Formats: sequence, C-alpha cells, structure tokens
Amino acid sequence: MTDLQIAQSISPKHIRDIASALAIPETQLEYYGQDKAKLPLSLIDENKVDSSNLVLVTAITPTPAGEGKTTTSIGLGDAMCQLGKKTITVIREPSLGPVFGIKGGAAGGGWSQVIPMVDINLHFTGDFHAIEKANNLLSALIENNIQSKTKSLGIDPRTVQWKRCMDMNDRGLRNIVAALGGKAGGIPRETGFNITAASEIMAILCLSNNFNDLKEKCGAIYVGDTWEGKPVYARDLHAEGAMAVLLKDAIKPNLVQTLEGNPAIIHGGPFANIAQGTNSILATKMGMSLADYVITEAGFGADLGAEKFLNIKCRTAGLSPKAIVLVATIRALKYHGGKPLSEVAQEDTEALEKGFPNLERHIKSLKSFGIPIVVSVNGFTSDTDAEKQLLKSHCEKLGVAVTLSHGWAEGGKGCLDLAEKVVEAVAQCTTQFTPTYSLEDSVRTKIKKVCETIYGAEHVILSNEAKSQLLRYESLGYGNLPICIAKTQKSLSDDEKQLGRPEHFDIHIREFEIAAGAGFIIPIAGNILRMPGLPATPAAEHIDIDENGEIVGLF
Amino acid sequence: MTDLQIAQSISPKHIRDIASALAIPETQLEYYGQDKAKLPLSLIDENKVDSSNLVLVTAITPTPAGEGKTTTSIGLGDAMCQLGKKTITVIREPSLGPVFGIKGGAAGGGWSQVIPMVDINLHFTGDFHAIEKANNLLSALIENNIQSKTKSLGIDPRTVQWKRCMDMNDRGLRNIVAALGGKAGGIPRETGFNITAASEIMAILCLSNNFNDLKEKCGAIYVGDTWEGKPVYARDLHAEGAMAVLLKDAIKPNLVQTLEGNPAIIHGGPFANIAQGTNSILATKMGMSLADYVITEAGFGADLGAEKFLNIKCRTAGLSPKAIVLVATIRALKYHGGKPLSEVAQEDTEALEKGFPNLERHIKSLKSFGIPIVVSVNGFTSDTDAEKQLLKSHCEKLGVAVTLSHGWAEGGKGCLDLAEKVVEAVAQCTTQFTPTYSLEDSVRTKIKKVCETIYGAEHVILSNEAKSQLLRYESLGYGNLPICIAKTQKSLSDDEKQLGRPEHFDIHIREFEIAAGAGFIIPIAGNILRMPGLPATPAAEHIDIDENGEIVGLF
Repeated sequence: MTDLQIAQSISPKHIRDIASALAIPETQLEYYGQDKAKLPLSLIDENKVDSSNLVLVTAITPTPAGEGKTTTSIGLGDAMCQLGKKTITVIREPSLGPVFGIKGGAAGGGWSQVIPMVDINLHFTGDFHAIEKANNLLSALIENNIQSKTKSLGIDPRTVQWKRCMDMNDRGLRNIVAALGGKAGGIPRETGFNITAASEIMAILCLSNNFNDLKEKCGAIYVGDTWEGKPVYARDLHAEGAMAVLLKDAIKPNLVQTLEGNPAIIHGGPFANIAQGTNSILATKMGMSLADYVITEAGFGADLGAEKFLNIKCRTAGLSPKAIVLVATIRALKYHGGKPLSEVAQEDTEALEKGFPNLERHIKSLKSFGIPIVVSVNGFTSDTDAEKQLLKSHCEKLGVAVTLSHGWAEGGKGCLDLAEKVVEAVAQCTTQFTPTYSLEDSVRTKIKKVCETIYGAEHVILSNEAKSQLLRYESLGYGNLPICIAKTQKSLSDDEKQLGRPEHFDIHIREFEIAAGAGFIIPIAGNILRMPGLPATPAAEHIDIDENGEIVGLF
Repeated sequence: MTDLQIAQSISPKHIRDIASALAIPETQLEYYGQDKAKLPLSLIDENKVDSSNLVLVTAITPTPAGEGKTTTSIGLGDAMCQLGKKTITVIREPSLGPVFGIKGGAAGGGWSQVIPMVDINLHFTGDFHAIEKANNLLSALIENNIQSKTKSLGIDPRTVQWKRCMDMNDRGLRNIVAALGGKAGGIPRETGFNITAASEIMAILCLSNNFNDLKEKCGAIYVGDTWEGKPVYARDLHAEGAMAVLLKDAIKPNLVQTLEGNPAIIHGGPFANIAQGTNSILATKMGMSLADYVITEAGFGADLGAEKFLNIKCRTAGLSPKAIVLVATIRALKYHGGKPLSEVAQEDTEALEKGFPNLERHIKSLKSFGIPIVVSVNGFTSDTDAEKQLLKSHCEKLGVAVTLSHGWAEGGKGCLDLAEKVVEAVAQCTTQFTPTYSLEDSVRTKIKKVCETIYGAEHVILSNEAKSQLLRYESLGYGNLPICIAKTQKSLSDDEKQLGRPEHFDIHIREFEIAAGAGFIIPIAGNILRMPGLPATPAAEHIDIDENGEIVGLF
C-alpha cells in the first residue's frame, strides 16, 4: 500500500471531536472542511507552556530520500498517547516545491501519518499562499515607490535586497531582470525569487510571539538603501498593516489528526537548509498549552534543524526541550560508509561501521546543548539482525540511549519503546539547553562557534563580498542577532559530496543576507540556492486525478 | 458608515442554514469557517438549469469608481427574494490587485453586500491561489524541459507564449528576463507575468463544464513551438494531471450570503477588460439548479462584460439570459457629458444630457442580442429630482423600461421596482440571444462584427505583428474559436480618453494571444496591459489591523 492508500483507508474523526478531547469548545474552531481547523491564539496559556514538556526530533545527515523524522515524530506522538500521556505532535507544513519535484510528501509515512494528507500536501489552509502574498505585496510597493514621482523615498534600485517569492521549484525565477518595458514598467534591475519556505515572511510568521509582534516584524524588514545610503524599511512604505491583514488567518495554528486519531498541529514550513527549519513558535506554544508533551521536529540533519531550533527558535521563544531524539537509519549510515544509494538495501556491516562517524559527530554536536539524547533507529524491512545488533551495541558503547522504532510499519505501537525512553529522558532533564553562542558574540564568532561545535569544521572563510555585507549589517546595528546559516543538508560541510564525517574542512561564506524583521543574519555557505529547481523527471508528470477525485502519483 | 462597518454590523447566519433553505444537506457542504462553504458539482442538475431564469446585470461605460453593478446585482437578488421569488445572486470573486491598489472591494456596497466581506476580498476559499499555482507549475515545467538534457521536447525558448501569473498589481513583473544566472538557471528569455484574473487558467476554470473538461482544457494549453516550428501543448509536458489536482477544490463554487441572509454564489474572477469578465459556468449552473432566478453580473461596461458573457460564456455553456439590466448612474452620465470627475456630485442637467449618447449606444448594442432590457439608474444622494426626471423621460422616449434603484442605501427594498420590472421582462422573453458573430466567421470578421455592432467603430486595423500571429493561430486550427478582445474599460473605443459616445473611430489590434485551452483568441486593442500597476497612493498604505483583528482602511 502507498502512503496515500493507507491515509485514505482511515475514516478520520470529525475535527470537532479531536478538539473536544483537548477541551477546546467548538465555538473556538474555524473549520476548513470537516478534518482541519484553525485555532485562535487566545488558547495559548504561558503558564501551561511552562509546565509542559517539549521533545525535539532531529536526525543524522540524511540521504536524498529522508530518514523518517516526521514519521518518527508522528509515531512517537501516537505511542505517547498509547502510554496514556497527553501528547500533541507539532510539525511543519509541506511546501509545494518538493511535492511536484521529488516524489514525497511531508506528512509522515506508512502508519505514522497526519491526515488529510492530500490537503496537507497541497493548499492546506492557505498559509503558504498568504505568506507569498504578503511578501509580494511588499515587492509591488517597493517597485511602485521607485516609480513614484510624488512620494518617492529615493530608493536606489541597485540596493533593493527584498526578493519576491513563490512556492514552486522554478529555477527560471532564481535570477531575473524585472521592471523592463520602458517608462511604464519601472527601472530595470536585477532581482529574483526565493522559494516561499525560505522567505523572510515565513520566518517572521514562525518567530512571532503574537499578532502585534508579527506586524512589527513586518515593518522592520530591511528593503534596501536610498541613493544617499540610508536604510529603507517596510514601515517606510507603510506596508506592514496590509501585510498583517493578509496574514491574519495564516498566523493561527492548524489542528489536524494522526492516523490513530490523536491531535496534531501543523503550522509554518521553513526549510532547514536555507531557512530556520522549524514550525512556528505559536504552534509549539499552542501544543504545550493543550498537552503535557509536545513532540516536534526540525528539518534535515541536526547540524541544520536542531542547531537553528535551539539557537534561534527556542532562544527567541524562551523554550527549552527536555529530550532530543536523534533519528538514524541503517541504510543512511551505510550510505555514509560509502555504499551507493542504489545498494543501501543490501546487508553490509562493513559499510555500516564506516558510516558510524556521522552518527557520532551528530551525537557529539547535540551533547553540546546539554539535553538528554535518545537515538531512534527508524526500521526498514531491509535492515538485517546483524546490522541492527551492530548499531545497537555501538550506541551503547557511546553511552547513549538507543532503540529500534517501527513507526512506518506499525504506527504508535512500533514506537512504544522509544516513547518509554523519551519519558525517562524528559524526567531526567533538569536544565535549560546551553546555546552554541551568545548573542553578544560578534557575527564572525557566532559563525565560527556553530561551524566548529556543530559541523566540526576547522576554519570559516568569508568572501570579499560577504565581508563588506557584514560590515554594512553590523553598522546598521544587526550584530546582536542570531545567525541562520544556509548550507547544504547533504553533508556536515558545505560541499554536498563530503559524506560521512568530513574532517579538516573549512566553511566558505559566499554572501550574507539579512532578515531584519524575522531577526537573524543569514550567512550563505557554499553553493546553496534559495530557489530550487525541478529534477529531470518531476513528480508532477505522474500526478493525476480522475473525475471522481481519485488521485494517483502524489506519493 | 463605511461598507466594512455595515458588513460587520450584521450577524451572519450559519452557512448551513443558508444551504438548508436551498435544500442542500449539511453533509454536502465543505465548510470554510462558519460563513463560507464549497458546493459539490454533483448538485448541478441540467434539467433544473433549463427551467431556471438567468438575468444579466451590465452597465454603461463606467467611471473609475464603478457604477454599482455588483451592488445592483445583490440588491436585485434581495428584492427578488422579498417578492417571494426563489433567487440566487451569482457573482465573481475579487482580485487582490485592485484591493491593494484603488480603494474598493468587489463584494457590493452599502446595504447590498455579500458577506463575509473581508474574507471575500482577501484569500476567500483560496481559489485564486490555486489558479496561480496551477499556472505557475506549468511555467516551472516548461523551464525545466528547456533545461533538460534527457527529456527535452526541443522547445524554442524564443517562442514560449505561456506567462507566469500573480494576483497583485506589480508593474515590475509585466516584462522580465528570466532564467538568468548561468547554466543552472536555464536559457535566458523574455517573458512576464499576467495578473491572475487575466490568466488562461482563470478562464479555463470559468469555462469548464465539468472536472474532466477542466483537465482536458489544461492539457490543450498552447505553450510555444519547438525549434522545428511544431506547436507544444501542456499535455506534451504531462502537466494537466498535476494542474487538475491543484484545482480540485477551486473548481467547486462557493456559497455565501447577502446582508439580508439570502444565498449568493461567488466563483471565478476574470476581469472583463483583459479577460472574459464573468463568473464560472459551473457557478451559474449551480445557481440555476438551486433557484428559479439567477442574477449575475459581467465586468465593466456592456461593450466588454456583456459582449463576452453572451458570445463566449453563454454560447459555450448553452445558456441564454431572459433579461439584461443595464446599470447607469447620473454622475457617470454627467462625466461622459464632460463634467470633471471631481464635480460629478454637482447638479448639471446639461452635462447629463450630453452624456446620454453613451447610454444610448449601450442600449443599441444590447438590443442586437434580442433580449429584453431594463435600465436601472443606481441612485446616489447627490442625484437631484431634475436630473432623475430628465433621465427617466429620456429612457421612456427610447422605449426602454427604466427604474431608479437604491440598493446601496436601502438593500433589497430599494430595488423592488427593478425586481418587478425584471420579472416582467423575463416573462416576456421568448427567445434565445442572437450572437454577434458566428463561430464559422473568420477571426477578422468576428473582430469586425464586435467592433461595429458593439463598440460602434468604423474600421479594425491590425498591426503587422498581429497579422502574422493571426496567420499562425489560424494555421494551427484556432480560426473557429470565439474572440475575447482586450480593451480599455474607460471608453467604447480603444483610447481611454474618448468618453461619451465616440464616433468615427478605429480599433487597433496591437497583437494576438491565444487561449487554446480556455478556447478563445485574444485580440489586444490599444495600450491595454494584462498586468496592472499600483496607483500613486496604493490603498495598501492605509490598510491596517490591530491585535483584536479590527481592520481599517480596507474599504
């Protein structure tokens, strides 16, 4: 059975029943069909947040197919519920880019999924669309002001940093010349589109502490400079009110359910390689207001998602997880040990052992935060007993809790041992996490600390362009912001070909971007692009629907 | 009170109660909140469509502020309900472009509005967003195929006609060079964005007779040519299945209510100047399946909206209206009579008389369709008794039914006389409408007939570029399609400065576009642009929302 077939084999509960089990009255729900609802921010209760337990699910360096973080998160959430723990899984919304690019959704898999999976993977409740519109309204206002005779702010079009965005893998929009066509079209200039998941508005939505905060952050967006070199902000264009109006519903977290009928909240969807990679603060706090445990995930490997989750999101929100689940798979470790991707289903204990250093490095990096770690080996049918035993004993030698989980094949039942270990770890946690850097550190020091402590790099090398951008951003007073490094997810280094545990490598910062509204500086490492392209055979080619609404090829 | 304040002073009925009055069971509704729902296409019943009565509301050449067609449509619908006639008002969805550009929504005004007006004017149920994504997915697939080494169709990038779209007034996107940035970015080429309301996907959604038809039309989109000069269609890129998946909910009409608690259906939103200007066939048929009378509108003046409503939509759908309401305002007629826009509130019977020819011309044009006409003078508080009397007696001299209506000030009560005249006209109508041209006419003849019969033009002049494009489209077999002329809404001519009733003028066809999927040819007249810009002071600057969700400046 495909994920889609499994998802469609379940009769979902009415979302009012999911809400009712959380003691949310029906009058508070804003329905989107019978199986999705938005939750009002008034349900967030900071006292309950303080007494709830946050658990982060992260992973080793993933293969292109992903290692099952979302599947593990959902399976773990269901298992916690089976153990009688009041638990909500809180995860990100999928982007249409990957849905139509590389086959695969972001709503879990097998018997550990959130539903309605088709809607969740398509337009869902329109949050991405609203973000895109708010982003692109600001672009239109910038273009209009550059063109204006009477209300000009004197924006130098060569300095406009603000890009448009689109939730689509469209390489043709990465670099464009806009505003062509003569006087009526504006002043031609180089610009481009980011994918919506990497847009600053997505980051703002996910890092806002309340609605007013969202509006202020929109106003604080740094647009570019005037001809005299003065910075121009979105508020100078009177843009933030209309942007906030566009985001008035998108700011509300979305309630859905798992295949087992347990609650799940899905909200916000930044990528972790080119953005901060974790769902919204408000969704996390909503979950913590409604349940004793919140299971959440952060994108890609721990070097990206977990680092940003802790140093950006948790620091901004005043949150600290009580346990970190590190997802590994035997096939990914074999891949890091040199086995070609096409052969990872074959038994190979030698390749597995050679791949261990990747896992070890992530464990070492995560230990720097001082929070209990549980390694969860996400089981595949191709895993052999010899391989499982080898991996298990290796983790035990490292002194870290380890378990085999089977969320894909068995749902919550397959994650019961993991759930028990997580409950234990949470009970043992007596401390807040230790950030990798202090906000008072210089930007260069922050980058150095992340690169050394988390990636295991030796040096950080800034391009000349990056150096001059950094000077500019520091002079504008952004030196105290946290950093959000854009880097390939395929390697601990900035070179996607360096698998396993690369050593003696440097990180090359090509350029900087500033997210003054969201509140972070973006050092861009290596060749990473903030607008992906489609693969040779896009998944879109095989997606179809008949007149009865039967969909094929989506997953 | 502003329109927004009036709209918010009403407690809306639950949408299930609106549906229930139409005998739609709750299980058939897909809720979007408590006051919006999508209706399944299975509710359309062709037998009921045949016995229902369709009434079109159109207008004289409008001033920039609009003459109240939507307000009249909603007021008329409410008045019909007051008369005990089972009536549904079926109108278009607003575009975000004008909402953030020129202050003004498209959900009626005063006491003749559809609600929830804020949602309707923002993201509503996401239809525009879905259309945009389907459009732009095709663009991404085109770009990807041009880039492909292994699956190339050999598309000549210089011939790609398909443009991206965005629901935003962004002049900077009108003309762009895309796919810059070296090998990874693609082959640079000139292209641009249309506003979503003018996109072919919008047209397809509005002209589809069922879901399979939608998918086929998506596949039939003409993309461009190969290097050998062969046409390439969207189906060659295997795009139509994924596009249809994106449109699976957008194709369903949306049920809302008027301020008086009567049903309204809002679906599809093409502009009438640069697109076909009328809501979806499926929405109209849905209304006709559920009620004895359907009141619908077509955008801008009768030269644009009504012409396209009849010659494109009604012909495609096999529909024929039984009455046409022509909305005029005293201030617009004074404007056409030479009164400056800033002074139209002043009494001026001389200017009014000088403006009559615009009304006369529209009456003459509409008479060519052979359907009964009622002139509805949409009342403003500035209208004087002398002006009203003059206009009324002038219409009576022309032998056309006329009434003063007051939908804005009084809701349905202000449109009771109009409603009675409409019921009378419908009862008298014994014929189908006479199209302006036959589909077998050549494209040039079709254009000539519309320009002469509807606009009152003398000659049609094609640019050299238009001539060669026409040859190409005819050779591809598109000569039998209807035409959808893109022309300014501000004048009967293609020159927006020619107010009143211009005479002895020519229409200049600058270029052609083809909407092979939607099924029409687009002759582009004069300087009309398919991506608008923002005005000097965009409405967006004054739109705001506070943390309690109170919105100001939207209307």
